[in-house]
Amino acid sequence: LTVYLVGAGPGDPDLLTVRAHRVLSVADVVVVDRLVDDRVVALARPHARIIDVGKTAYAGAAATSQEAITAMLVVLGSQGLTVVRLKGGDPFVFGRGGEELAALRDAGVPAEVVPGVTSALGVPALAGVPVTLRGVASSFLVMSGHDPDEVLAACAGHAGTSTTLVLLMAVATRRRIAEGLLAAGWEPKTSVALISRGATPQERRALTDLGHLGGALVDAPAVIVIGAVASLLEQRGAVASIPSLPTVRVDIAS
Amino acid sequence: LTVYLVGAGPGDPDLLTVRAHRVLSVADVVVVDRLVDDRVVALARPHARIIDVGKTAYAGAAATSQEAITAMLVVLGSQGLTVVRLKGGDPFVFGRGGEELAALRDAGVPAEVVPGVTSALGVPALAGVPVTLRGVASSFLVMSGHDPDEVLAACAGHAGTSTTLVLLMAVATRRRIAEGLLAAGWEPKTSVALISRGATPQERRALTDLGHLGGALVDAPAVIVIGAVASLLEQRGAVASIPSLPTVRVDIAS
Repeated sequence: LTVYLVGAGPGDPDLLTVRAHRVLSVADVVVVDRLVDDRVVALARPHARIIDVGKTAYAGAAATSQEAITAMLVVLGSQGLTVVRLKGGDPFVFGRGGEELAALRDAGVPAEVVPGVTSALGVPALAGVPVTLRGVASSFLVMSGHDPDEVLAACAGHAGTSTTLVLLMAVATRRRIAEGLLAAGWEPKTSVALISRGATPQERRALTDLGHLGGALVDAPAVIVIGAVASLLEQRGAVASIPSLPTVRVDIAS
Repeated sequence: LTVYLVGAGPGDPDLLTVRAHRVLSVADVVVVDRLVDDRVVALARPHARIIDVGKTAYAGAAATSQEAITAMLVVLGSQGLTVVRLKGGDPFVFGRGGEELAALRDAGVPAEVVPGVTSALGVPALAGVPVTLRGVASSFLVMSGHDPDEVLAACAGHAGTSTTLVLLMAVATRRRIAEGLLAAGWEPKTSVALISRGATPQERRALTDLGHLGGALVDAPAVIVIGAVASLLEQRGAVASIPSLPTVRVDIAS
């Protein structure tokens, strides 16, 4: 009887929260973005209705318009269904969850936010990159690369500082952004970590620098980390493999 | 046989990831910071050894020094124990996880990062505040308030922009930061959301503005959100209560 705006985390279903896991297991309807991993959608109960609204959360190319999705959530919620709106990462980090929550509140539909591990932080962390590090990085700025001018304006004051930049949805605009940052005084040797399809079996990592970011090969979706901490990127294979843990039963009570 | 650097999320044990829940249930030793909720520590298995290293992650007042904690993790990991290093929020967001991971790697001790929901984003989200919102906030900057001069330097270029500021550990320095931002051209009417002890039964929320932030009452630890999105803060009681969900058994296989 509630619409849950749920963060699915960066990909690996193990990175879902316990609460996300629980609401997925009782939802009547699950409304899914393209950025949500199939393995997460598979956690919905067998008879749940899955509505795939396509590419809405990514690169602005909407299979279903945001307005249509928001209206759909209001209608479904008004019908007394338990609805999970599942978004990659966190629903409030470039996820348009804020718009959906506002519309649901306006319509008097009960709604609850279930935060998730944002890809902006979780994907670098799994690759060994901390966005903050004592003596190295004391703050971080997270942006969408959708509008390079906006990115450059936001970064203007951070050249030579200890702020880590994290860019999402910036594969298409990385050349323009790199050129702008260099023009604004960023060092060409500034480390850049590129992580494509993070926290999935298709994950690819590459370490480069700002002077070479424009020409670097990188598949979307990717997380791009710019700053000294990026040099800590662990290349695939250098990471300790995850040991096999015993199967445990966890009683997830309400 | 691994040291897990685990994010415990903002407080509510339901916001742990499934992976965090699983490693807690098999750990021989759990090394805990003050900022970790007691309800999360209670998820460790009955015979696990719990080591409370006190105030290390908060405000610089270390009960056990960071160097001692890091050395302890290396020793415990070298003994072939399964160790969970449990931190409030995310281990790589002001959690000193980067230092600990580096030391473990240097010592050849297997280590793995388990990202968590950072309080910087999860606490505002649960209170209805999205750090990004289309047409309102297109980026966000997260900082520790420990060094106000550093905060002011990082924020210098963001006056009048659509960047949301999120401050952690800034209760003691909020007056100095507010004065500095006003002097740098921030509008006194800029909305500020104060959320103390987020995602715990003791949570308190307050909405103010930058002109009144210095004099606002707020208990530590708190998350302070500065920017237009802060005005969306839902006061306690206005939030739809969490409906009672059926108890489900979730098989958490390795």
